[in-house]
Amino acid sequence: MSKGKVILAYSGGLDTSVILKYLQEEGYEVICFCANVGQDEDFDAVRKKAVALGASKVYVEDLREDFLINYIYPAIKANAIYESRYLLGTSLARPCIAKRQVEVAHAEGAQFVGHGATGKGNDQVRFGLSVYALDPTIKELAPWRDDKFLARFRGRQDLLNYARAKGIPLPSGEKPPYSMDDNMMHISYESGELEDPSRVAEESLYGKTGRWDQWADAPEVVRIHFSNGVPVRVELPASGESHDQPLPMFQCLTRLGRKHGIGRVDIVEDRYIGLKSRGVYETPAVTILRCAHIDIEGIAMDREVMRLRDMLSPEFSKLAYDGFWFSPEMDFLVSAINKSQELIDGWVDVRCYKGSCMAIARQSPTSLYDEKLASMEEVDSFSPSDAGGFIRIQAIRLKAHREILKKVGKDRLASLLPEPTPTYAAFSEVGEHEADG
Amino acid sequence: MSKGKVILAYSGGLDTSVILKYLQEEGYEVICFCANVGQDEDFDAVRKKAVALGASKVYVEDLREDFLINYIYPAIKANAIYESRYLLGTSLARPCIAKRQVEVAHAEGAQFVGHGATGKGNDQVRFGLSVYALDPTIKELAPWRDDKFLARFRGRQDLLNYARAKGIPLPSGEKPPYSMDDNMMHISYESGELEDPSRVAEESLYGKTGRWDQWADAPEVVRIHFSNGVPVRVELPASGESHDQPLPMFQCLTRLGRKHGIGRVDIVEDRYIGLKSRGVYETPAVTILRCAHIDIEGIAMDREVMRLRDMLSPEFSKLAYDGFWFSPEMDFLVSAINKSQELIDGWVDVRCYKGSCMAIARQSPTSLYDEKLASMEEVDSFSPSDAGGFIRIQAIRLKAHREILKKVGKDRLASLLPEPTPTYAAFSEVGEHEADG
Amino acid sequence: MSKGKVILAYSGGLDTSVILKYLQEEGYEVICFCANVGQDEDFDAVRKKAVALGASKVYVEDLREDFLINYIYPAIKANAIYESRYLLGTSLARPCIAKRQVEVAHAEGAQFVGHGATGKGNDQVRFGLSVYALDPTIKELAPWRDDKFLARFRGRQDLLNYARAKGIPLPSGEKPPYSMDDNMMHISYESGELEDPSRVAEESLYGKTGRWDQWADAPEVVRIHFSNGVPVRVELPASGESHDQPLPMFQCLTRLGRKHGIGRVDIVEDRYIGLKSRGVYETPAVTILRCAHIDIEGIAMDREVMRLRDMLSPEFSKLAYDGFWFSPEMDFLVSAINKSQELIDGWVDVRCYKGSCMAIARQSPTSLYDEKLASMEEVDSFSPSDAGGFIRIQAIRLKAHREILKKVGKDRLASLLPEPTPTYAAFSEVGEHEADG
Amino acid sequence: MSKGKVILAYSGGLDTSVILKYLQEEGYEVICFCANVGQDEDFDAVRKKAVALGASKVYVEDLREDFLINYIYPAIKANAIYESRYLLGTSLARPCIAKRQVEVAHAEGAQFVGHGATGKGNDQVRFGLSVYALDPTIKELAPWRDDKFLARFRGRQDLLNYARAKGIPLPSGEKPPYSMDDNMMHISYESGELEDPSRVAEESLYGKTGRWDQWADAPEVVRIHFSNGVPVRVELPASGESHDQPLPMFQCLTRLGRKHGIGRVDIVEDRYIGLKSRGVYETPAVTILRCAHIDIEGIAMDREVMRLRDMLSPEFSKLAYDGFWFSPEMDFLVSAINKSQELIDGWVDVRCYKGSCMAIARQSPTSLYDEKLASMEEVDSFSPSDAGGFIRIQAIRLKAHREILKKVGKDRLASLLPEPTPTYAAFSEVGEHEADG
Repeated sequence: MSKGKVILAYSGGLDTSVILKYLQEEGYEVICFCANVGQDEDFDAVRKKAVALGASKVYVEDLREDFLINYIYPAIKANAIYESRYLLGTSLARPCIAKRQVEVAHAEGAQFVGHGATGKGNDQVRFGLSVYALDPTIKELAPWRDDKFLARFRGRQDLLNYARAKGIPLPSGEKPPYSMDDNMMHISYESGELEDPSRVAEESLYGKTGRWDQWADAPEVVRIHFSNGVPVRVELPASGESHDQPLPMFQCLTRLGRKHGIGRVDIVEDRYIGLKSRGVYETPAVTILRCAHIDIEGIAMDREVMRLRDMLSPEFSKLAYDGFWFSPEMDFLVSAINKSQELIDGWVDVRCYKGSCMAIARQSPTSLYDEKLASMEEVDSFSPSDAGGFIRIQAIRLKAHREILKKVGKDRLASLLPEPTPTYAAFSEVGEHEADG
Repeated sequence: MSKGKVILAYSGGLDTSVILKYLQEEGYEVICFCANVGQDEDFDAVRKKAVALGASKVYVEDLREDFLINYIYPAIKANAIYESRYLLGTSLARPCIAKRQVEVAHAEGAQFVGHGATGKGNDQVRFGLSVYALDPTIKELAPWRDDKFLARFRGRQDLLNYARAKGIPLPSGEKPPYSMDDNMMHISYESGELEDPSRVAEESLYGKTGRWDQWADAPEVVRIHFSNGVPVRVELPASGESHDQPLPMFQCLTRLGRKHGIGRVDIVEDRYIGLKSRGVYETPAVTILRCAHIDIEGIAMDREVMRLRDMLSPEFSKLAYDGFWFSPEMDFLVSAINKSQELIDGWVDVRCYKGSCMAIARQSPTSLYDEKLASMEEVDSFSPSDAGGFIRIQAIRLKAHREILKKVGKDRLASLLPEPTPTYAAFSEVGEHEADG
Repeated sequence: MSKGKVILAYSGGLDTSVILKYLQEEGYEVICFCANVGQDEDFDAVRKKAVALGASKVYVEDLREDFLINYIYPAIKANAIYESRYLLGTSLARPCIAKRQVEVAHAEGAQFVGHGATGKGNDQVRFGLSVYALDPTIKELAPWRDDKFLARFRGRQDLLNYARAKGIPLPSGEKPPYSMDDNMMHISYESGELEDPSRVAEESLYGKTGRWDQWADAPEVVRIHFSNGVPVRVELPASGESHDQPLPMFQCLTRLGRKHGIGRVDIVEDRYIGLKSRGVYETPAVTILRCAHIDIEGIAMDREVMRLRDMLSPEFSKLAYDGFWFSPEMDFLVSAINKSQELIDGWVDVRCYKGSCMAIARQSPTSLYDEKLASMEEVDSFSPSDAGGFIRIQAIRLKAHREILKKVGKDRLASLLPEPTPTYAAFSEVGEHEADG
Repeated sequence: MSKGKVILAYSGGLDTSVILKYLQEEGYEVICFCANVGQDEDFDAVRKKAVALGASKVYVEDLREDFLINYIYPAIKANAIYESRYLLGTSLARPCIAKRQVEVAHAEGAQFVGHGATGKGNDQVRFGLSVYALDPTIKELAPWRDDKFLARFRGRQDLLNYARAKGIPLPSGEKPPYSMDDNMMHISYESGELEDPSRVAEESLYGKTGRWDQWADAPEVVRIHFSNGVPVRVELPASGESHDQPLPMFQCLTRLGRKHGIGRVDIVEDRYIGLKSRGVYETPAVTILRCAHIDIEGIAMDREVMRLRDMLSPEFSKLAYDGFWFSPEMDFLVSAINKSQELIDGWVDVRCYKGSCMAIARQSPTSLYDEKLASMEEVDSFSPSDAGGFIRIQAIRLKAHREILKKVGKDRLASLLPEPTPTYAAFSEVGEHEADG
């Protein structure tokens, strides 16, 4: 008798194919779910493979627009970045996939959802928390955390042996020297050769940005228009190409990023479960979009709103990374960040060249920049003596502190300074001036 | 009779030369103070000019090492950056200069310190707050905020006329189309042509990074060693060049940055006095150092220490930008940040190429990265079932929240999602799958 | 000829009466604006006095409900408190008054608004920023910052002399030994005798809480119902009294607070302009409401939403205190805080007694508390072994840190401890146990 | 053969007595560790009971001074409080006990440490994380998370049956209707009858504050002296009693708190493992100390240092609550907080009366309060016109924002306001004034 239906996140690869057969052996009816989030994949082949391996049903769904609008755009609005560098390409895709998987479970009346994420990684957490948050009654099947499964499959060789025995097509060619996660936003690389953080990644690894010696030889400018903090139009003035629909805009920026090699990072990051991990990422389009978005905010966002929003951005990034996309706290953050984007309109010109991009010009109908007021020459609308009062008021507190330092005998000027690095000779006090007269 | 002695921050330029004469006319004895913070300047000529214009004494002092060790290094330890992009090259130099000026005032028994900063900018604040914080009894003279001075000098032409009348050498050539501030860390450009934020800065403007078409044609790697979060050795493996003293290290990285065009940004930023302002900056060495420092922290800093320190970094940056270098709160922050750097040791390889740099490898004697533990294959020292418990415990709270949403009738899955941007068709719910079997 | 119309915030007291005459002398047409924000005042007398002193028109407006709903309620939702103790009674009233004053200026076509706040206090800032933020074209008249006015009125005696000369009724009785600001939310006391922070305030000062020896002799419970974080019903079970309209609810709580002496604080606080100041406050109703609101959040608010909202609360309080009520950043905060209150429903019983109050029971239809799950006996719905996994995963990072401490020779257990206060003998290491066996 | 030595945290109660026998049955050599952290206990009886039940050795150690100086004092310096109300009495004691337990394990060469904390609570986490952080090689034994133990002991009756069978003395009297944790800082109560959060705790429950109708009938003032943020002297002026050693000071304040009923709270809080839980706490001495410490900071701490420290306080409290006392991030926080306390000196008078306490006077040798400067009358050392400049500079940004609102048609004054609660009639716009003319 069946233990029940499981909706299995199925990629068509060796691991999830083994799991597909294994779960059937264990007595589950397995329905495969394959999400198209923009990865380079032959979805028809995946579907056929699943059917051939006994899946009772196969869902192949195009989630690209959902992924872009409901997951990537909020991250752009938040200027999301994890530990100063990682743009969250995988972190954002997982809840998108998991949500759809839960919806399929509801449609199919399934009690289980399953996945092939390992027991040491972040994806299991993102998957599990998304599922539990969306439907507390559904159970997660995670074979790579299951003692029985682990006892049977102690390494890649066991998987290959099982595959041979069960008629699972073997992977062609050698095992790649690292693992990858590919979607429309990024490719990530980790493990294998990359596990040595002092070893430089091979140039051949980079799949979304191409080889550095093939990047275009001249800079290229792209103009990105924003409305309420999200891109609404992309223009390449040199070619005349332009787009105003989400997917075509994003694909255009992805091509541009590849052409100029934009969006690589190579980092050691902190996984949620407490391990450090080395990862290499390529995120072309979002690197350009984030650059432009920060720039349009520079001209259209109030300084203090920016300061407060910037307190929330690391929280957004950490929640996304840690798998709390579907949580009351993320709901709270998204609401706040959306508020901050209400008047973030205008265009930014971004120059792309040989591995990086840079904002070089911008214009906004909601600009808070006042050319006349900012001018050093113009003083009619501004009273310079006000600035003197401003400074003297700000200094009241500092003076009071100084008086206390004097009183308690800590008024050496040096006492306020960061301690000089002891291995270097301290800079000498008054004396070595050149004076004349 | 003299109104008293003033220590005037003197650059040798038109503005401060006019102020030098003007303050003498107003009855002050003027002692000029010219700080060498690494700007491109003929200090001997400046000294002679000051003497010729009647300065009773001239101090020319080399503050480069003080600037580097006591101002730039703390910023590197803090990963300081203002509004996501500005590395604070001018903000850090001002308190260094002002402190020395106060020390000179003490040595000379002066009651006043003076400067030529304008009434709309940040520098007047940084100058004024530094002086008041270091010695509440000293008075700041800021002619550009003084009504009498402003009435007399209503524009550049008045300055030129006064200069001619007083024998102040006129600036050679045309007025540059923007103003600059140059020191060993950066050059900033603002005003003039740059006041139109939609106007792209001329390539000829860039003085520290050179023209983009002259950048080196091949990537180059630099290895930077850190101890307690500060650089202690710089190596260029290709040439065999290496340095382990602060100034030579920094100069080497500056040359490297120029060769590869590293460290440009073009932004609209928020001045402390509430105006937005457009600035262009070139900060080659610190851009490379910051990249390397973030990377060495990636491997050697605990995640939660990083999270807490990252809460303090924007505060550090804002205080430095706003002129509160000498303040109890900066003292507090520097102490905390120094604590965070205690075990930040090791080297990072940074690849420089055509306008940007990227960390590509790193090694640390205090690494928290455990290659064996991070490996996907290795499970001996790690119990995957622990991760299941971890996830289920984290989910308890999310499940409770879902139950409340159900209870109050807000349990549409969509209700947890960020609202879709309304101009795009919402992604359709379950239905359009391709199923078979 | 008239210099223009000024809408003067008029209290009827000596200072603003002098200002009323003075501004007329200076050539302004003065329209008086007197806001009823619940202070103990004879508004009819104030109106007559203004007319008698030459005001061309007098507005007396009841702003109590506006003040309560649009200023006090947002503060309750934010759990607002400044520097851990001050509940912002004056800070919240100022923008309420200033906004109405600007609206009156619009209705009257006035170019100026005026007030009698001093040049060292917070209220001038709250007033000025509110006016400038609401209408940048209106000018603020602040005589207590005006050199000419200050030269004329150097102390209280000058005011009294001027009053006598101009027919302004003199204050009856002696000058009180401190200044007060009274409204429906609180009374504040400062200056005068209170300027010595080591001097205990007289019991007779307390106007809203009465004398301690007259407080009721038995505890009394009030039940407060909340919906979306705001009070919607107040019940006094002992008397059967109940209210569900804002003003009557608030007045009931104010009476209750007086009866039991609730809401006193005596503090040294930081004014926005950089001075420290000693203030005494009585805030009966809001002290009770804040106690209840924190309690209902305890049962109905998700922990992480609370953590994030608690990051924003000090920002809200500081903005309110500093006078930035009408600002884009306050708009941002209020939006975020409102989001956090969406499911904050239920009742709380608060026990009031002799100077303090305490939540003692609560119930919520959106409670996240699960009695069965929290029970120590119940384990069916909870797997204790999950907690073991949770702990071991959390410990991975701590273990890695310990290994590094060992490696670098800093693994003394004591090294992790806060340093013992040096004046006390350190606690001895292993040794002095009583062992047997 | 023995499975090894375990150092068992032993209280002498039913649970840990059962565990003591059970672990022996399971093959462990059990050494009992009983910490005196100030709880009301007959330690000699506990020691005898442990020996009688087969412990191979018993440690009874007085950790009170260690607990006070190294755990409670840091919390006072941090103004630590969890979720606005809980003062962390149990949270702070656990790592103190666990650290000593690990030291005993080292002294005894034990491989295990054990405890009787349940699988749903916070204490297991605090215990486990402390042990793992201090010595990654030691293993935690937590029977209440062990499936075998749980299968055998399904409820209190099983424990009683086992106790009878093994000669463990049965608890005298009925099971109390809640569980308690008692130490010198506080008593906590939870579970049992308290599991219904709408049920008021019995007055008889309160063990450290006594019955409300027995509290003293007159207020009493205590003067507490601080040096570097920690109490160094306690004086009761009425009785002449005074203390300047840590334990006697703390005991004096505990007696004072009992006499006046100070330090009760009744809350629903968030456990680290994601459950909400109802707890009642009595924390007399620390409630008084925290009140005084906040007050001395009010006069001696710079505003901005306070703001930054106040960002870190919730992090300190959460880490302490969650069990991360021994962690790099706590080490970082403690270092930062110690820095903030460097000039926090002086005395505070706290008035205690009928359930609460309140600071009423204070004096500090490092006071930043300047009576003369704060005075409303004194303007010699302060230029009121500076405040006008300060305000106008602050307003620049607000005016620019208003201009944008006008430009985009959102310039209704109401648009800046928090939305009025919709169930109440909105306050009417200009119109209903009483004017005369």
